[in-house]
Amino acid sequence: MKNRSIGIGLMGLGIIGGQVVKVLTEKADMLAGQTGGPLVLRKIKVLPVDLKRPQAREMPAGLLTTDEEEFFNAPGIDIVIEAIGGEHPAREYLKRAITSGRYVVTSNKEVIAKHGAELQALAQKHNVGLRYEASVGGGIPLIAPFKYDLVANDITGIFAIINGTTNYILTRMAREGIDFPQALKSAQELGYAEANPENDIEGIDANYKLAILASLAFQTVVRPEDIYREGISRIGSRDFRYARELGLAIKLLAIAKRADNSIEVRVHPVLIPEDSLLAKVDGVYNGILVEGDLIEKVLFYGQGAGPLATSSAVVADVVASAQDITFGVGNRLKWTPGSGKRIKPMDEIETQYYLRLNCADRPGVLAQISKILGDNMISIASAIQKEADEAAQTAELVLTTHPSPEKAMRQALNQIERLEVVKEIGNFIRIEHI
Amino acid sequence: MKNRSIGIGLMGLGIIGGQVVKVLTEKADMLAGQTGGPLVLRKIKVLPVDLKRPQAREMPAGLLTTDEEEFFNAPGIDIVIEAIGGEHPAREYLKRAITSGRYVVTSNKEVIAKHGAELQALAQKHNVGLRYEASVGGGIPLIAPFKYDLVANDITGIFAIINGTTNYILTRMAREGIDFPQALKSAQELGYAEANPENDIEGIDANYKLAILASLAFQTVVRPEDIYREGISRIGSRDFRYARELGLAIKLLAIAKRADNSIEVRVHPVLIPEDSLLAKVDGVYNGILVEGDLIEKVLFYGQGAGPLATSSAVVADVVASAQDITFGVGNRLKWTPGSGKRIKPMDEIETQYYLRLNCADRPGVLAQISKILGDNMISIASAIQKEADEAAQTAELVLTTHPSPEKAMRQALNQIERLEVVKEIGNFIRIEHI
Repeated sequence: MKNRSIGIGLMGLGIIGGQVVKVLTEKADMLAGQTGGPLVLRKIKVLPVDLKRPQAREMPAGLLTTDEEEFFNAPGIDIVIEAIGGEHPAREYLKRAITSGRYVVTSNKEVIAKHGAELQALAQKHNVGLRYEASVGGGIPLIAPFKYDLVANDITGIFAIINGTTNYILTRMAREGIDFPQALKSAQELGYAEANPENDIEGIDANYKLAILASLAFQTVVRPEDIYREGISRIGSRDFRYARELGLAIKLLAIAKRADNSIEVRVHPVLIPEDSLLAKVDGVYNGILVEGDLIEKVLFYGQGAGPLATSSAVVADVVASAQDITFGVGNRLKWTPGSGKRIKPMDEIETQYYLRLNCADRPGVLAQISKILGDNMISIASAIQKEADEAAQTAELVLTTHPSPEKAMRQALNQIERLEVVKEIGNFIRIEHI
Repeated sequence: MKNRSIGIGLMGLGIIGGQVVKVLTEKADMLAGQTGGPLVLRKIKVLPVDLKRPQAREMPAGLLTTDEEEFFNAPGIDIVIEAIGGEHPAREYLKRAITSGRYVVTSNKEVIAKHGAELQALAQKHNVGLRYEASVGGGIPLIAPFKYDLVANDITGIFAIINGTTNYILTRMAREGIDFPQALKSAQELGYAEANPENDIEGIDANYKLAILASLAFQTVVRPEDIYREGISRIGSRDFRYARELGLAIKLLAIAKRADNSIEVRVHPVLIPEDSLLAKVDGVYNGILVEGDLIEKVLFYGQGAGPLATSSAVVADVVASAQDITFGVGNRLKWTPGSGKRIKPMDEIETQYYLRLNCADRPGVLAQISKILGDNMISIASAIQKEADEAAQTAELVLTTHPSPEKAMRQALNQIERLEVVKEIGNFIRIEHI
């Protein structure tokens, strides 16, 4: 084992990049003890705007560059950390780093979700490491467990709260009885949601992360577009009230299940038992429940975002890369992700359903609805009739079903919607008994 | 990278060893895909009694041996799995395996807790891997996260439910209002507690596991005898009733904290807020909360024992060892555990306390007790007076304190015990606001 120093090139000096520099600098001695030699920051690729940051101004002249060529041609860079985010030019930078023989570490969920298979193949070809622990779950170890610790398991299920923004909004709605727009506004004011919140509240961020986790867990390529996706904006405060009556909590879950060679992957709001551990994962925290044939259930919980937690994962990946470099280990992956597994269309999934209907307040309504469900072979598990609005002569009807095929449920909903006595389908949420 | 086969020698064919054989056999193809070459079971060291097991009878002649010499002289063994448990002869076997150049994998918490530093030094000297993921937390990834994933953190605290038996007993007591002897008996009947339950209920098992985790987290040698230890047998059903009134749950926790170069390590019953995630870890499950400067809090949850979960960790260690062998990587540890950190005597710790006193039911009792606490600079956070026994003219008084030094609390307890109005100190439990 050579105890030489390891050179680091960093791309991006935003919040994440800046924090990574801080850790590499402040903990230099401790990290050197872990890798057997010092980690030396040799070059940082920044945008012109970053040069004005206080952190940038304190750095030695020559460490920073805005020029891509200067960055990639700098001597002595063994590991490239990509912390610029977004799809482009991150993808191109990562490919260039790999092609030029550098080990790469990234926190970029979008690039890994969309181009992970391509980058992994490239890293195998050039025999360098590709690590992305920070791309999912912030500082919670997740990628490494799937790659190493749980490797003896057939993973059968993942149920994950992996977007802190939506979990914060849903937690506020559950606790305060407020509606979605108000909770979103508050989250934005507190900096937990962005001005344009689409990426979070429509489940796009969770979709990327699930693509990464499911690809690893099932050793196959799951692309973001393979995943069914619904956001949280249609959840109302009344859904939380009914959920509580039913002993259920509402969470945005990223779900992956495997049975034989079929996979189902979906991101949508889910009702789960309120005494389950996932139901207790509140606020901006993440919780990831993994089911496997040997472990039964393992749950990981922690901060899924933020510069400190993310830097914990990035620096751990840097240390692992540095250890591999000193040991002369190239790319570790022995298997090539196959594409032999079939992604189930949503029509084929089977789950339980919660249905909130705004109906005419008159006799026989439940009978008509029950008949449609029965004709579609869907059996009702519970029914609550509530909140008659005397002026409008309407009442709210909340039904839950036993496990039923999504296809049958969709068909029943179409028929129910056409009933004269049904004013509106208020909501339709899947239930998972985890 | 050579894609040769990796030879395995297994010591012990009990419940764990038998399950490991099952996984290695049934998942041979999948595991070969992970390591780049097949894992071949070359020899199993058994006790004469094991030869009668159905599993043993189905094995090829010559695979089993009761002879230590035959085992260690068998050709082509790269990795030795130790699954016999207990301190001796496991320690001697592990030393012999390491000294003869084999990578070792063990699930033996007692040996690692007592002799981990010695074995690690030996493994470094002979440049082979020493892995023990299954020794703590069964199938929950814990050792690997401390060694790799959380390596950028200064770990400041560990709060762990790491003994399933005691957690099962406490869960039964909390839910059913039964007393310790009854809960223990029931746990024994269901096979969750052993006929001689001392190892679990006195916190010895948790003590071993904490020694392992704290040694890793703080990169120092924490020996089992460094750890303060109390069992759960003195917890009564009334303590659960009062805890609930105070919004607290009772758990046996293994606690490790670090401040600068001082460490505190202790295993004892603890009152924790009932809405904390650890309080929701019920039954035989384990939950390990880790605090670090970057991650803030991460919690790991799952089955802490059982053959399936344990085999998950053992086989993951075998795969990691096999990968290292094919890559030509020897011992990975870069640091030598120091002993520079000071273990705080219990007198120096500071925490909150719950105090249940059986007192004379007459005026001025609380005043006398408060005076003693005040004289010792301990301030009362809450007081409940309950359950006057009219015949005996006694009442139960439950106090909680603000954070106070253990030394002052001990002194106050001595003085309180001598008060004529105090019949008995019913219980004394530490409180942690995690």
